[in-house]
Amino acid sequence: MVFDAPDHRDHEQVTHFTDEETGLEAIISIHDTTLGPSLGGTRILDYDTEEEALTDVLRLSRAMTYKAAAADLHLGGGKAVIIGDPEEIKTDALMRAYGRAVDCLDGRYITSVDVNSGVKDMELIESQTDHVVGTSDGLGDPSPITAHGVLHGLKACVEHVYGTDTLSDIDVAVQGLGKVGHGLAVGLAERGASVTVTDINEDKMAEFTAEYDAEAVAPDDIYDVDCDVFAPCAFGGAINDDTLPRLTCDIVAGAANNILADEERHSEMLKDEGILYAPDYVINAGGLITVYHEHQGGTEEQAFEDAKAIGDRLQTMIERAEDEDITVLDAADAYAEERIGNQDRTTPARSW
Amino acid sequence: MVFDAPDHRDHEQVTHFTDEETGLEAIISIHDTTLGPSLGGTRILDYDTEEEALTDVLRLSRAMTYKAAAADLHLGGGKAVIIGDPEEIKTDALMRAYGRAVDCLDGRYITSVDVNSGVKDMELIESQTDHVVGTSDGLGDPSPITAHGVLHGLKACVEHVYGTDTLSDIDVAVQGLGKVGHGLAVGLAERGASVTVTDINEDKMAEFTAEYDAEAVAPDDIYDVDCDVFAPCAFGGAINDDTLPRLTCDIVAGAANNILADEERHSEMLKDEGILYAPDYVINAGGLITVYHEHQGGTEEQAFEDAKAIGDRLQTMIERAEDEDITVLDAADAYAEERIGNQDRTTPARSW
Repeated sequence: MVFDAPDHRDHEQVTHFTDEETGLEAIISIHDTTLGPSLGGTRILDYDTEEEALTDVLRLSRAMTYKAAAADLHLGGGKAVIIGDPEEIKTDALMRAYGRAVDCLDGRYITSVDVNSGVKDMELIESQTDHVVGTSDGLGDPSPITAHGVLHGLKACVEHVYGTDTLSDIDVAVQGLGKVGHGLAVGLAERGASVTVTDINEDKMAEFTAEYDAEAVAPDDIYDVDCDVFAPCAFGGAINDDTLPRLTCDIVAGAANNILADEERHSEMLKDEGILYAPDYVINAGGLITVYHEHQGGTEEQAFEDAKAIGDRLQTMIERAEDEDITVLDAADAYAEERIGNQDRTTPARSW
Repeated sequence: MVFDAPDHRDHEQVTHFTDEETGLEAIISIHDTTLGPSLGGTRILDYDTEEEALTDVLRLSRAMTYKAAAADLHLGGGKAVIIGDPEEIKTDALMRAYGRAVDCLDGRYITSVDVNSGVKDMELIESQTDHVVGTSDGLGDPSPITAHGVLHGLKACVEHVYGTDTLSDIDVAVQGLGKVGHGLAVGLAERGASVTVTDINEDKMAEFTAEYDAEAVAPDDIYDVDCDVFAPCAFGGAINDDTLPRLTCDIVAGAANNILADEERHSEMLKDEGILYAPDYVINAGGLITVYHEHQGGTEEQAFEDAKAIGDRLQTMIERAEDEDITVLDAADAYAEERIGNQDRTTPARSW
């Protein structure tokens, strides 16, 4: 087991906080601050062991470094977990204590919403620290901006594969009509694409097909839809050993996190099948872009503009992948790593 | 193995720091800051695993909380480890990077010398942070003050057991003539006690017996010396299953850390044998008292005065142990815990 123990050596600063009075137990992981202060959400989950929580926060904070670097933001990667069942542990006092924990990191970590933490929690945190985004006085719900970024990333893929800058001849299968999936589907329909949608909520499907000229299919049938683009916008692991062989598309480009069940293996498999995969963390960076601009005191317009640029960055990565015969995921990772590695290191890279 | 994993839940703030450029890997553990900023040394050791390092620093920082609380200091407990073979890893740049890590905790942790870290290292740390004691511009070598505290603790034991405030009829066996052991032996001899000494260094023994009217014995024979007080001042685990049955003394009171191989079991065994044990962390607190006064800008005289008060505190603990029929170690722990527990908690107890 010792050999499986989580390893901090890749991370700048990982802090365990406990507060006896409120029962708070939190881990804040700062992976890398070369490009700027680390930013990432606070996840509240009832992990079975402390080790499981640590493994999760180390992994997630590392992913945030890549996401911020690949989005050309002046941000590093961080993430936090509060350990416990949110229904049992979440009190105002606990969230305030957590806010003080965030504050004592002096802005090296900026927090935001995540699984089981919402706007109300961010406001309690904000009562103790300035280092929080996603409060109600911020730029508001980032979903439209995320959808906008995914749409422009998808357009870049279409342009690369079909050599066209219009979506009017393109068939897209959209999995999931949550806020972002719905926004993407609307954007596609408005631009003349043929859209097929699915969702576990039938009302959402009915509503969408009533308003737009679109088809709906049962959730499990979405993988078999004859289409040009498959856009997973529902849950992680949508592309796995079972679903991948069923795909008929040329492009996978969606808003979900962790689209590939096994990143390395499935990105290779998609490449072998001649399917262009837009790395999830590149194409769905609109949310991060939004909170970054919120933190900088910027506007919604700037965030929309920046999210649109996801298309250009993705284009660069796709071209590099072709040139070097690597996956686009590897090209994206290399893009992020080079941005970090090329920094002037005459001053200490670490923020502390 | 998961069940054996180190548990942070008893500790306020535990931070892992890494610095790629210098190869620094450090863990700073802040156990409790109810009574004041945490203070404890930085140990540099080549631990086999990160988990082993973590277990050690969690244990040591907790011990510092008790030590500071039982010494009536306005300090909490902390400790740090730098992972690696000091001969291989220790560079000026690494110690400076470590100084920045200490600095970013904003004074919630104050560091000092420990195993494999010395005055020169503290000065490198001091180039980056104010939160360090034990530099050459401090109060200097605390050994005489530590010896002074042990002497007064030992006197309190003698007074309790024999009802006398003089040491002239007392036989003391001193194990180890390092700086503190030597200082204690000198103080005892000067006060008329019959002193038997031992050390692995024969020159030190010869030097001492030449100057004072004292006997010397071979290192392993010290446990069999017919004496009133046994004073272990050499190494941890001096009292163990093999040595405990050999003791003929009425009192164990020495300067070493971790005198008992198994704290709980051996303190009970000593009590059952009618041997009064002065808890090591209470009686050897003179070093901590010295760096506390250094940090407060105090004088050597204040530190000597405060170390002398170890005798009075120990007396209180001994009386409580008798009243409640518990070991003096349990009485000392209770004293420390009550000092922490009785703090006004209307403001958050945590320093962050």
